[in-house]
Amino acid sequence: MHAEIITIGDEILIGQIVDSNSAFLAKELNKIGIEVSQIKSISDKEDAILDAMKDAQKRVSLVVLTGGLGPTKDDITKSSFCSFFNDKLVHNQEVLDHIEALFAQYLNVPINDLNRAQAMVPSNATLLENRFGTAVGMWMENDDTVYVSLPGVPYEMKHITNNELIPKLKTHFKRPVIVHKTMMTYGWGESQIAEVIHDWESNLPEHIKLAYLPNLGRVRLRLTARGEDETVLTDQLDRLFAALDPLIGEIITGFESELPIQAQIGDFLQKRGQSIATAESCTGGRIAALLSSTPGASAYFHGSVVPYKTDRKLDVLGVPKAIIEKHSVVSDEVALSMAKRVREVMKSDYGIAVTGNAGPTKGDSDAAVGTVCIAIVGPDNEEVETFAFGENREKTLQKTVNKALEITRKVLAF
Amino acid sequence: MHAEIITIGDEILIGQIVDSNSAFLAKELNKIGIEVSQIKSISDKEDAILDAMKDAQKRVSLVVLTGGLGPTKDDITKSSFCSFFNDKLVHNQEVLDHIEALFAQYLNVPINDLNRAQAMVPSNATLLENRFGTAVGMWMENDDTVYVSLPGVPYEMKHITNNELIPKLKTHFKRPVIVHKTMMTYGWGESQIAEVIHDWESNLPEHIKLAYLPNLGRVRLRLTARGEDETVLTDQLDRLFAALDPLIGEIITGFESELPIQAQIGDFLQKRGQSIATAESCTGGRIAALLSSTPGASAYFHGSVVPYKTDRKLDVLGVPKAIIEKHSVVSDEVALSMAKRVREVMKSDYGIAVTGNAGPTKGDSDAAVGTVCIAIVGPDNEEVETFAFGENREKTLQKTVNKALEITRKVLAF
Repeated sequence: MHAEIITIGDEILIGQIVDSNSAFLAKELNKIGIEVSQIKSISDKEDAILDAMKDAQKRVSLVVLTGGLGPTKDDITKSSFCSFFNDKLVHNQEVLDHIEALFAQYLNVPINDLNRAQAMVPSNATLLENRFGTAVGMWMENDDTVYVSLPGVPYEMKHITNNELIPKLKTHFKRPVIVHKTMMTYGWGESQIAEVIHDWESNLPEHIKLAYLPNLGRVRLRLTARGEDETVLTDQLDRLFAALDPLIGEIITGFESELPIQAQIGDFLQKRGQSIATAESCTGGRIAALLSSTPGASAYFHGSVVPYKTDRKLDVLGVPKAIIEKHSVVSDEVALSMAKRVREVMKSDYGIAVTGNAGPTKGDSDAAVGTVCIAIVGPDNEEVETFAFGENREKTLQKTVNKALEITRKVLAF
Repeated sequence: MHAEIITIGDEILIGQIVDSNSAFLAKELNKIGIEVSQIKSISDKEDAILDAMKDAQKRVSLVVLTGGLGPTKDDITKSSFCSFFNDKLVHNQEVLDHIEALFAQYLNVPINDLNRAQAMVPSNATLLENRFGTAVGMWMENDDTVYVSLPGVPYEMKHITNNELIPKLKTHFKRPVIVHKTMMTYGWGESQIAEVIHDWESNLPEHIKLAYLPNLGRVRLRLTARGEDETVLTDQLDRLFAALDPLIGEIITGFESELPIQAQIGDFLQKRGQSIATAESCTGGRIAALLSSTPGASAYFHGSVVPYKTDRKLDVLGVPKAIIEKHSVVSDEVALSMAKRVREVMKSDYGIAVTGNAGPTKGDSDAAVGTVCIAIVGPDNEEVETFAFGENREKTLQKTVNKALEITRKVLAF
C-alpha cells in the first residue's frame, strides 16, 4: 500500500516557505501502515498539477495533494480535478452555509464573490469537512487510485487529516503494519557506531531495516519493521535493540518517543509535584520557550531570567560579583551560581543555567567562541559541564539547548 | 533555465524530519536566476535514485541531489552515480587527507574503514569540497544536464552550496534575471484583499506574477518578475506596489526583506544606540529567544524576565499586587506594568511585555483562552492592546510573537 504526497505552490519552489505539511502527512499515513514512496512539490499551474496526478497513478493507490485551494486566483486545484476526472464544478449549499457561518463568527466583513466561489466543488467529489477554514477537502477516485485534495494552511490541513481523512482511509484500504523504533545516542560518530555494531547490523532479518540519523552530536538509530502483527514486530524490535546494550550501552540516551524531551521532563516533574526554572545567557530564553511550549506547562515551569548583559547576572539574578571576577563570566562556577540563584528567585526545585559565548565575537569573557557552560541544580544533586561547540553561532545555540535538556534528564534520572 | 531538487532519505518519507534543505537550495538557485520546477523526496534505494535521475533529465538542465552520502550502509548515492554515468569508484588521496585531518582536529577516535571508503569517488566526478564534513560533494554531466550531489547534513550542504556550487553554476550556465518582492499586510483576509485589488491584479503584465501567501493573520503579496535587466524589473515591481497604496494602504505593514523582523528591530536599535528587554508570561521566552538569535544581539538586547507563575510577576518583576488584584493578571494594566518594570530591571530603553492565556485551560485569570495583552513601553511612548487569538495554543503563541514584534516596529516607527 503506497502513497504519494504532492504539495502545490510556487512559494515552496522559490524557497519562501519550508514544506512541513508533507512531514506531518507522511507520519500520519505511516502510522496506519501506508508507506509514502515519494513526496513532490510542484508549481501551481494546471499543467504541472495534471502531470503530477497522472504520473502518480502509475505507482501508487493513494495521492494526497495539499495547497492550491483558497479564494484567490493562484488556486487552481479544483479546476485541475475537474479536468482530470472530466467533471464540472457545482454549487454546494452546505459548504456555502459553512463559509457564511465562519465569516459571521470570526470576521467583520461580508462574504464576497470569491468566498462564494469556494462553495463550487466537483460534482463527483466526496467532501472532507474543514471546520477551521473556507477551503473544503475533496476525495475522488479514478480506477483504483484515490486522490485527496487538502488546503495548504497547516492547521486546517492537520485538522482535516486527523478528523476526516485518516478514518476514511482506514475503512477504504487494507493495510500492512509498519512499526518504527528509534534509539538515541550521544557521543560517538556515525562511522564509529557502524563499526562496532557491524555484525549485529548484518544479521538483521529481511523485513527489518536500519537507518543512521546523525544531527548535531546525536546519532539516532532507527529500525523499521514491516509485517502483519504489531505485537510481534514491536517485540522483535525490542529484542534487537536490547542486543545493542552490551555493544554501545555507554552512548545510549534512550528511545525517541512521540513526546519531545521537554514534554518528557514536564511529565516527570508533574508526576513528582516538582518544578523547574531557567537562567539563560547565550541561549536567550530558548530553553524556557521549549519548556513552556507544552500545554499545561504552568504546573511545573516557574519561569526564567535571561540576563543577557553580564551586569544583569549581578543585579537581576544576584550572582555574586566576586565569582564572576574570579572565574570570568563564562565558567562552571558562574553557571552553577546562576542555576542556584534562579532556583531561589523562581522558587523552583530545579534550575537550569547556561552561560557561554556563541559568537561571532568574544564577548565580556576570554572564552573562545563556542564555549558554553551548562549547570543543572536540584534539591539533592548538581551537574555542571563546559563544552566547545565550535564557531557556528546557530549550531552552538541549538547544541546548547539539546545538551541542557539531556543533562536535565540525567539529573532527574528518568 | 530550470532545475530540479531531489532529496534522498527514508527519514523524510516517514515524516521523521522536515526537509528544510530544499527550501534553502531553492532560494539560493532562485537568486541567480535558476528556476526550480520541482522538488522530489525519494527513498534511499538505488532504483528510486536512478529513476529520479532519469526522469529529471527530460525536464531540466540541472539536478541537485541532497542526502544519501555518508559513511554508513544506508548511503548509496555514490554507487547510483556510478551506475547512471557508467563510471567506477576510485581512491582519492586528497579526500582521504581531508578526512584524516578532520578526525585529527575534532574527534578522538582513529579513522576506520567506513571513513576510508568515503575517499572513494566516481572517477569522472568534479569534487566540491566539504570543509566541515567527510562526505564530499560531486558534479557530473550527462549530455547537457548537470547532476550535483551534496550531503544531507544541513550546515555541510549550505557551506558547499555557497562556497562551491553557486560560483560554479554562475560560470557554467547563462541565466535570466528573476526578481521577487513581497509586501506584507495585516488585518484583512485573502479574499477581501483580492476583491479590492481585482482591477490592479488583472492588469499585471504577462512577465509578472502575483501570489497571495496567508499565514496567521498576515497576508503577504508576492510579485515575481522575469526578464533581462534587474534594475528595470525592480523598478516595475516598485511602481506596481506603489499603486496599491491608495487601495490597501491601511493594512500594509511593509516589505519582506532578507532580514527577519527581529533583525530589523535590532539594526534600528543599534543604529540609535538603544536597547530592549522583554517580560513574557505565556510566550515563555520566545520573543527573547528571537531577539537574541541575531549575531551581535548583545549590542541592544539586555535580557528578559519570564514570570510564568503569577506570583513571580510580583516578586521577581515587581508588578504591584494591587494592579493584578484590581485588573486581573491578564489585563492591559498588568501588561503595561510588566513592560515598565522590565525596562527598569533590565535597564533598557524599550520593554516588551506579554501576559495572556494560551490555554488549554483558563489559568489564574478569568480571561477566555486565547486572550493576550501585549504592551510596548519606550522612553517617550507606549502602546498596549488586547487580542483574542482563539483556542489553538500553539497558534496563539505564534500570533502573539508576530504581533508583539509588529507593534514594536510601530512604536519604534521605522
